[in-house]
Amino acid sequence: MLRLILADAELERVPETIAGHPAVVKNAKKRGKRPGGVLLDSNLHHSAMRGLPEWERRGRPDIAHAFLLLSLDSIANQRGEMEIMIHTRNDEIIFVSPETRLPKGYNRFCGLMESLFLNGVVPNKESPLLRIEKMALPELLKNYEASGITVLHPEGESLTLSEHMGRIDLSEHTFVIGGFAVGDFRTDFSGISHDKVSISDLLLKVWTVTSEVIVNYEIAAGIR
Amino acid sequence: MLRLILADAELERVPETIAGHPAVVKNAKKRGKRPGGVLLDSNLHHSAMRGLPEWERRGRPDIAHAFLLLSLDSIANQRGEMEIMIHTRNDEIIFVSPETRLPKGYNRFCGLMESLFLNGVVPNKESPLLRIEKMALPELLKNYEASGITVLHPEGESLTLSEHMGRIDLSEHTFVIGGFAVGDFRTDFSGISHDKVSISDLLLKVWTVTSEVIVNYEIAAGIR
Repeated sequence: MLRLILADAELERVPETIAGHPAVVKNAKKRGKRPGGVLLDSNLHHSAMRGLPEWERRGRPDIAHAFLLLSLDSIANQRGEMEIMIHTRNDEIIFVSPETRLPKGYNRFCGLMESLFLNGVVPNKESPLLRIEKMALPELLKNYEASGITVLHPEGESLTLSEHMGRIDLSEHTFVIGGFAVGDFRTDFSGISHDKVSISDLLLKVWTVTSEVIVNYEIAAGIR
Repeated sequence: MLRLILADAELERVPETIAGHPAVVKNAKKRGKRPGGVLLDSNLHHSAMRGLPEWERRGRPDIAHAFLLLSLDSIANQRGEMEIMIHTRNDEIIFVSPETRLPKGYNRFCGLMESLFLNGVVPNKESPLLRIEKMALPELLKNYEASGITVLHPEGESLTLSEHMGRIDLSEHTFVIGGFAVGDFRTDFSGISHDKVSISDLLLKVWTVTSEVIVNYEIAAGIR
């Protein structure tokens, strides 16, 4: 079973400090939403974001979207061999049911996430597909230490994924992928026993890393 | 070298017959475009599309977007081992330079495609990254028959991609992936010698197939 966690994902609602900025207000109005209820999106809120700490890396729901599209439709997930989670910059964990079917299109995906941040679950408490909970990543990872954790990191040991897959227990393993395009993990992994692996000397986008991990796992574990 | 072709992609501008529909006009106006100049998008033009033949499958620029995000950023492409093309439902071929960097976000991607349909090249004729040309798919494929062509199709021979990669000449091979979510290829491949392969009994989305082909090719060809 492959447990895939997108970590420090740049997924959050517009922070209060910039909720009054004209770019934010205008865009929220167009969508019939409260400015503080919409997702921060660097494509839409670029001019407003310059006032935020770490603004260069924030507001990337498109990364979480691509991660979920690839994970949920993968052969491994359709065969019941995956657990999918997203950890956000504000230390929330989104637990994703393998049966989740994402709405078609990016704008509807953002609407779904906004509803999740507002209500804590979607579509409802009785049969939740997505659930969000306040929790730091190390606290979550503590549960998975025994079966092995790999953090993909450009400064890790240089290994191909097929080499690495040969060294781990494929019956249960957790892979952690950074959910950001700029900078390093914000989470401190030092208290968690894990392998730190670099799969390429190239700069790879999150969807490329996601795709590499899933397909290499399927091949190593014989999932078809 | 992996040549990857997205075939019969549901990528087109709004057809003239529905360019006057209120849903199309309203959306084009919001973006400051001529109704006939915008991409057909089933998320935006759903109500207008019911008048079109094959409306259930048309208007899916999101598929071409995901295909290009995955292909362009892949390790194989960054290592100079790929050729990427898109064939559209209107028998056009989009030739994609491996150096192309897509704009961030779906809406900007649509703007880029609209500019390509309008001008034939982007960003300009002097150093084109994308180029579009009127051509049917069999005419294009004729050039690649000698080095081997695989069409991925649910009714093909049931094989894993790693099995299939072991049987083909990896130094140059063309993979054809359907760029639609509903129905079958519209192109007739009967005049083209090719292998027809089904990689799974599951229904897989285009981005999953794209990801499977690229990563399996990289592993088989030792690209890292």
